[in-house]
Amino acid sequence: MSDVQSQLLRGSFKLTRVGVTDVKKPVTIKRGNKEVVLTASFDIFVDLPAELKGSHLSRNLEVLSQVLDESVRDHADSLEILADRICSELLIRHEYATCSEVNIMADYFMEREVNGGTSSLESYLLKATAVSFRNGESNKSIGVEVIGMTACPCAMEEVRDRYLSRHPESEELLKAIPIITHNQRNISSLEIDVPANFDVEAEDLINILEGSLSSPTREILKRKHEADIVEKAHANPKFVEDVVRDILSAVLDKYQNMPDDVRIMAKSESQESIHKHNAFAERVTTLGELKA
Amino acid sequence: MSDVQSQLLRGSFKLTRVGVTDVKKPVTIKRGNKEVVLTASFDIFVDLPAELKGSHLSRNLEVLSQVLDESVRDHADSLEILADRICSELLIRHEYATCSEVNIMADYFMEREVNGGTSSLESYLLKATAVSFRNGESNKSIGVEVIGMTACPCAMEEVRDRYLSRHPESEELLKAIPIITHNQRNISSLEIDVPANFDVEAEDLINILEGSLSSPTREILKRKHEADIVEKAHANPKFVEDVVRDILSAVLDKYQNMPDDVRIMAKSESQESIHKHNAFAERVTTLGELKA
Amino acid sequence: MSDVQSQLLRGSFKLTRVGVTDVKKPVTIKRGNKEVVLTASFDIFVDLPAELKGSHLSRNLEVLSQVLDESVRDHADSLEILADRICSELLIRHEYATCSEVNIMADYFMEREVNGGTSSLESYLLKATAVSFRNGESNKSIGVEVIGMTACPCAMEEVRDRYLSRHPESEELLKAIPIITHNQRNISSLEIDVPANFDVEAEDLINILEGSLSSPTREILKRKHEADIVEKAHANPKFVEDVVRDILSAVLDKYQNMPDDVRIMAKSESQESIHKHNAFAERVTTLGELKA
Amino acid sequence: MSDVQSQLLRGSFKLTRVGVTDVKKPVTIKRGNKEVVLTASFDIFVDLPAELKGSHLSRNLEVLSQVLDESVRDHADSLEILADRICSELLIRHEYATCSEVNIMADYFMEREVNGGTSSLESYLLKATAVSFRNGESNKSIGVEVIGMTACPCAMEEVRDRYLSRHPESEELLKAIPIITHNQRNISSLEIDVPANFDVEAEDLINILEGSLSSPTREILKRKHEADIVEKAHANPKFVEDVVRDILSAVLDKYQNMPDDVRIMAKSESQESIHKHNAFAERVTTLGELKA
Repeated sequence: MSDVQSQLLRGSFKLTRVGVTDVKKPVTIKRGNKEVVLTASFDIFVDLPAELKGSHLSRNLEVLSQVLDESVRDHADSLEILADRICSELLIRHEYATCSEVNIMADYFMEREVNGGTSSLESYLLKATAVSFRNGESNKSIGVEVIGMTACPCAMEEVRDRYLSRHPESEELLKAIPIITHNQRNISSLEIDVPANFDVEAEDLINILEGSLSSPTREILKRKHEADIVEKAHANPKFVEDVVRDILSAVLDKYQNMPDDVRIMAKSESQESIHKHNAFAERVTTLGELKA
Repeated sequence: MSDVQSQLLRGSFKLTRVGVTDVKKPVTIKRGNKEVVLTASFDIFVDLPAELKGSHLSRNLEVLSQVLDESVRDHADSLEILADRICSELLIRHEYATCSEVNIMADYFMEREVNGGTSSLESYLLKATAVSFRNGESNKSIGVEVIGMTACPCAMEEVRDRYLSRHPESEELLKAIPIITHNQRNISSLEIDVPANFDVEAEDLINILEGSLSSPTREILKRKHEADIVEKAHANPKFVEDVVRDILSAVLDKYQNMPDDVRIMAKSESQESIHKHNAFAERVTTLGELKA
Repeated sequence: MSDVQSQLLRGSFKLTRVGVTDVKKPVTIKRGNKEVVLTASFDIFVDLPAELKGSHLSRNLEVLSQVLDESVRDHADSLEILADRICSELLIRHEYATCSEVNIMADYFMEREVNGGTSSLESYLLKATAVSFRNGESNKSIGVEVIGMTACPCAMEEVRDRYLSRHPESEELLKAIPIITHNQRNISSLEIDVPANFDVEAEDLINILEGSLSSPTREILKRKHEADIVEKAHANPKFVEDVVRDILSAVLDKYQNMPDDVRIMAKSESQESIHKHNAFAERVTTLGELKA
Repeated sequence: MSDVQSQLLRGSFKLTRVGVTDVKKPVTIKRGNKEVVLTASFDIFVDLPAELKGSHLSRNLEVLSQVLDESVRDHADSLEILADRICSELLIRHEYATCSEVNIMADYFMEREVNGGTSSLESYLLKATAVSFRNGESNKSIGVEVIGMTACPCAMEEVRDRYLSRHPESEELLKAIPIITHNQRNISSLEIDVPANFDVEAEDLINILEGSLSSPTREILKRKHEADIVEKAHANPKFVEDVVRDILSAVLDKYQNMPDDVRIMAKSESQESIHKHNAFAERVTTLGELKA
């Protein structure tokens, strides 16, 4: 029977990545005593040498299905470990490939306390990736995306100056209290390599991100808690630049024992309330560079 | 030659809408002395009787192309007139149809003054629709979607109460000045029927929407103008409910001479800065109901 | 303490829908012996009388959280029942509202056999809605969206004519076998009211939709099964019009015992492989109209 | 007056990219005798040294507005030249930046002949980028994204084998004619550096992409032309791997005189008609690597 993919070519080009994108599957992760079911989306690739016409894409789906089935028994405890297992299996099944790559995205929920008292179930986005090479090298990373709030420090000081000139008699108060500014929904994310023999908790990354914003946001807020968040955000006015730097600082603090070649990507985008466009800041770096 | 679409069926079902969606074309509109080129997306439908197997969809594309070509010569002066012309032509070309429907969406740009001085070119979204019936009845509407800003009146009063209890000596000032609250990007839209012998300027709808928000937003803002917008928004704190009602009030004011059966759809969605979800308000009504 | 939302207004306008959109939560559904965890997105609304300034949106989130918590104990067995419970509770908590509305969307997975043998876990989209009125009336519906395949009957006959004129000696074969045509990814959906004392299985709707396409699609396909699907699709060439009519016919067959006022919405959109735009067909109707 | 952005920091981190995203503006390009108005979306960044608190984002908008205004007079003849001009101006206005980056995306329309006769206005997506460094180095690139059609060679051979075994008497015909397979909408893109003293026509890239697919697609097709496209696609069955390699081959042919360090990114994604997921292939390379 004809195997079109296995036809040999001459004078052709190798390909960097060949595979399937946007495959949706439910995934069960067991982390400590907590078992969660996530709806995940997968991109699954290998490279292709110049002399082969096609990659056998059905193998990517078979590998995915097999690794997900095994993970129900084996209690895979993170998305990046799942990604890594899929990568290893891809190299076995695609004997012509020199490397494999898997990206996974999934909504994730976490119970969060609302300023002393009630709790609220909040949604986050997890992003796991892994790459494996035929020579045995491999790499995996975990990332999270968090929706929070930023309040602009610049407009706040400009308005404060105005208030001071209008109400000079209240200088003391006006210098002491937070002043109105624009604030807005912000989407920040952090991705970090997970080296061999290390573990990175996605929930720690969520804490880092929420701690770097003017304020985290919560779904259920009584009037009192709304005011708490508004006060907190205005007591911590931040540009997107500040958010990214505070993420980097917390990463350096938390993961200083990890190797220097650990890659870090931190980014923050504010859906500006006074503009139709977004404000954006990003740092792509390594732990070694941050330590320097 | 076989014409599969024209095959006759027995015991089948009529269809409400059959056609093509997401057809992209450049469109030239001449309005007064101003000629603008827009990148528009079209949905183009007719109904289909039970006894016909298929609608000739290529005719929809031919009609679109023909009407757009003619509009370059004839200076079509609005998207809803274009939509109406396409609808009329559809009924001629689809002799089996009893009604036709066209929806058009396009980004639109308008030069806006920034608080006394500089100007900024702002983007909006236009939405035009038309339906035509074999019996001669027809209807067309124009709508706009505007990105602006809302500041929450509820959190503001809650925080004011706190400030008052903390600084009772400054009661007068704290009751007089705007207090911090959450504010955010808001997307509001207004769609209104354009009856025969009436004209509705899309730019009037944009003015109504921007006038109903806590503040419009502008792309180019020096520090001074940022503070102006922040002050304006906090002097006009609004729920999404307030935004929709102020739109309705302005519509009633501006279009009171139009017939009672003119349909109106006003809606406002705030991308809440203190939540991950959005706040939403909507009114679907007629001019007659609003007058009552 | 100030309750801004409860301020009384004069000469204002009532609002059709006020609430929150795009609230993400995990949901557990127990259906027979099968328990599934879905990642769902909720829109939650009530109406608002003219004399009230604002709707208490935090109540929508509290109601959602409470009903989801109870559903873990009570084994809610469908999304539309969850939606209905939320609607009822909304009318209790928003004492000023005359109606409530809830929309839920969630990815759903179902094990499907691949042409005799292996199985493949396929993804679908569920859409549940409910509305409740103060006078006791209520309505709920369930819908599914399915990705499948259509092959065009028109191009097939045109090409067949060409082949026949080129190879008149093979007339018999060329009239007997499926001929090449354009085929493509199709997204079809069906929504149907679920009247009191009736039950509608989402999996039945999935079966109806997959049975109405040229062929369903599967994620894991060995070469043999790819060919099976290609053959099946070309043996069942269908316009989007055909797909919608076959859905309607199957609905009429399956749900003929349900009341005449049951509303039905069937639609099919083909992401045409020979065009950049989509082909679309839709019928919005009632079971009574279909029976007529 | 306080300039919060200019505050000096100690022990902070430099940032890779700080700026604004998704700024929409109309753009006029004059290319030869043809003047086109495009609706473009801009991302505009500079880097930020560790010791500065914030980037002055309003300058990005001012630079954009100024360069677009000038381009109306100066007849900018490509999006990548516009991007390059914005980059240069950014380095002047952000005196602290060591590099700048601009990305532009815009729908583009091109009149295309339909197999000998009528013409059809087709839509494409342009992607231009530029980066500039303080040391005088700079780089710009142009890319296009094209929607077309692929037909699968693998399923075709599998089905052919079946037909041959079922109709052995017609072996000659069945080996000579195209056989049914799955075909689908494909989105392919090509981005290439535009070195100094060279020019790359976006329309040439569109031709390369459309020439590398099983068949280009057209918006207006009479029945005859539909059949032409179906026949063409089935006479050129292609995997996404084939599409990318044919793009690379055409690029090597057309741009062999450009320097070896010219970067090339070619990718192809088929929205598989027999699967719910997509098939994907990509090559990221340089002209020098391709020549090797």
